[in-house]
Amino acid sequence: MAPGFNDGENGADSSPKSVHVNNPHLDSMKEDILYHFNLGTSSHNLPQMFGDVKFVCVGGSPWRMKAFIQYIAGELKLGDPKDEFPNICAGTDRYSMYKVGPVLSVSHGMGIPSIAIMLHELIKLLHHANCTNVTIIRIGTSGGIGLDPGTVVITKQSVDPHFLPKFEQVILGRTVVRSTDLSEELAEELLQCGKELGKFGTAIGNTMCTLDFYEGQARLDGAFCSYTEKDKQNYLAEAYAAGVRNIEMESSVFAAMCKLSGVQAAVVCVTLLDRLKGDQLTSSHDILSNFQQRPQILVGHFIKKRLNASQKS
Amino acid sequence: MAPGFNDGENGADSSPKSVHVNNPHLDSMKEDILYHFNLGTSSHNLPQMFGDVKFVCVGGSPWRMKAFIQYIAGELKLGDPKDEFPNICAGTDRYSMYKVGPVLSVSHGMGIPSIAIMLHELIKLLHHANCTNVTIIRIGTSGGIGLDPGTVVITKQSVDPHFLPKFEQVILGRTVVRSTDLSEELAEELLQCGKELGKFGTAIGNTMCTLDFYEGQARLDGAFCSYTEKDKQNYLAEAYAAGVRNIEMESSVFAAMCKLSGVQAAVVCVTLLDRLKGDQLTSSHDILSNFQQRPQILVGHFIKKRLNASQKS
Repeated sequence: MAPGFNDGENGADSSPKSVHVNNPHLDSMKEDILYHFNLGTSSHNLPQMFGDVKFVCVGGSPWRMKAFIQYIAGELKLGDPKDEFPNICAGTDRYSMYKVGPVLSVSHGMGIPSIAIMLHELIKLLHHANCTNVTIIRIGTSGGIGLDPGTVVITKQSVDPHFLPKFEQVILGRTVVRSTDLSEELAEELLQCGKELGKFGTAIGNTMCTLDFYEGQARLDGAFCSYTEKDKQNYLAEAYAAGVRNIEMESSVFAAMCKLSGVQAAVVCVTLLDRLKGDQLTSSHDILSNFQQRPQILVGHFIKKRLNASQKS
Repeated sequence: MAPGFNDGENGADSSPKSVHVNNPHLDSMKEDILYHFNLGTSSHNLPQMFGDVKFVCVGGSPWRMKAFIQYIAGELKLGDPKDEFPNICAGTDRYSMYKVGPVLSVSHGMGIPSIAIMLHELIKLLHHANCTNVTIIRIGTSGGIGLDPGTVVITKQSVDPHFLPKFEQVILGRTVVRSTDLSEELAEELLQCGKELGKFGTAIGNTMCTLDFYEGQARLDGAFCSYTEKDKQNYLAEAYAAGVRNIEMESSVFAAMCKLSGVQAAVVCVTLLDRLKGDQLTSSHDILSNFQQRPQILVGHFIKKRLNASQKS
């Protein structure tokens, strides 16, 4: 067993960790159709297709997740980055999924509801496939607060618009509060990878997760805006004081669901702009494209390191 | 002026209705980059590209919105349904957009945050393009309650998981409650279209809008489930008693934002299953595909009728 593969919060335990589902109803189902992936337990041999998965990288954009699998294939010497990797979810346009060796790359669209649908089906998929010792990392984009654009932020805690580390899930009309804790150990490991690379700024900080990109993130450029530049700056200053270094739209439910399923998880997002200085994404396509490769490079380095450690042990 | 083009809630007013933005900051911006569409006021001539738009149809799936533009092109005799229509947002993978004559078709992904980003930029686009008398219709899929699968539900009111007709928008950490009223007149007009077609069941009812597909909609087949079949049935029975006939994930913010921008709006969703009888989508691909065409057929008929009335007047 590789040291890298059992270092959740209880590093001493070396038994393989499965992916938990917490749903007694699943046992009584003859088959489980993962509708938004166009996969299922009757139609597909999930253990054969996915049993060897150890790293799952997820991100909003299907193009970016395809680019990631090409990049990681080259890094792990498992393929040519120019190869066309088949989209495992080709039968649907809801999500895209690619695999090379132990790495799975899945798109999740934008916002909490979109990533939550994907994660329900991903967690069931990993469970049905009997995967063990899986690490899930969200590689995304975000707006930064007080950081140079292009800085990669590794999330310490995902906080809500009141800067509290919780996610509210409505179940049968009742609100259940869930923790958004992420693995501190994994965050430190990723920060170390950023330092080793030395190619771009990397920081650990809190990430604010919102349900809206415009009014929800204090932008002044939406279709509707009822507050002033000063109100915006005050709110972002409060966020900064609470340790928030970037803002995105998926980390809270991602952290909550990964924790419930017992999977080690991290959020690694590049900042595309400094929200203290503006709201619009005015940088050139080339600059934004370069920024978006940074979480991929950092996580690629991390995966290589873990796999090397595993081969040595 | 066609009668069909000015019949908001105040049918007597025959002056052209513009699309409102409620944001004083927009006036002072040199350019407005609609980032998630890969469009902008400096890079594109929006009035020339979109000034004639009268009908905007939106739906979650990019494939379905492409199929819709092909269908409506044929129906309006503006093109061959087999034609390839260019994706106006080809430079991004966040949304897809197609146009033929006065009809714009835009995908919005899944969930409130995803459709909200799209609507902020769509409302600004229509405003910048000086569009008037625009009708926006969401054509989507949903889970039905007590209806035969394949029934098309026209939303009377969009309600939250407590069955209340409101949408909560968090702005600078404070919750603002917005109305989810839709045009009753337009809903009746669409119901009438369903009757005229006589091809499938059409109903008017309340639509519950949730932030989650699994636990949020009382499904028993997610990765996590802490309630029983009886709890689920009780919750859905309460929903039914409150007039809810289907459940989806976008209608509340859609209704709220269209109302704020003064645009007449409707939600037309087909039910893919009866949630009282199950949770999984087990119908064949062909049946589900047929169901998904129904809102397109209904809205296609409506658009033809309005355009005919406009030509006669």
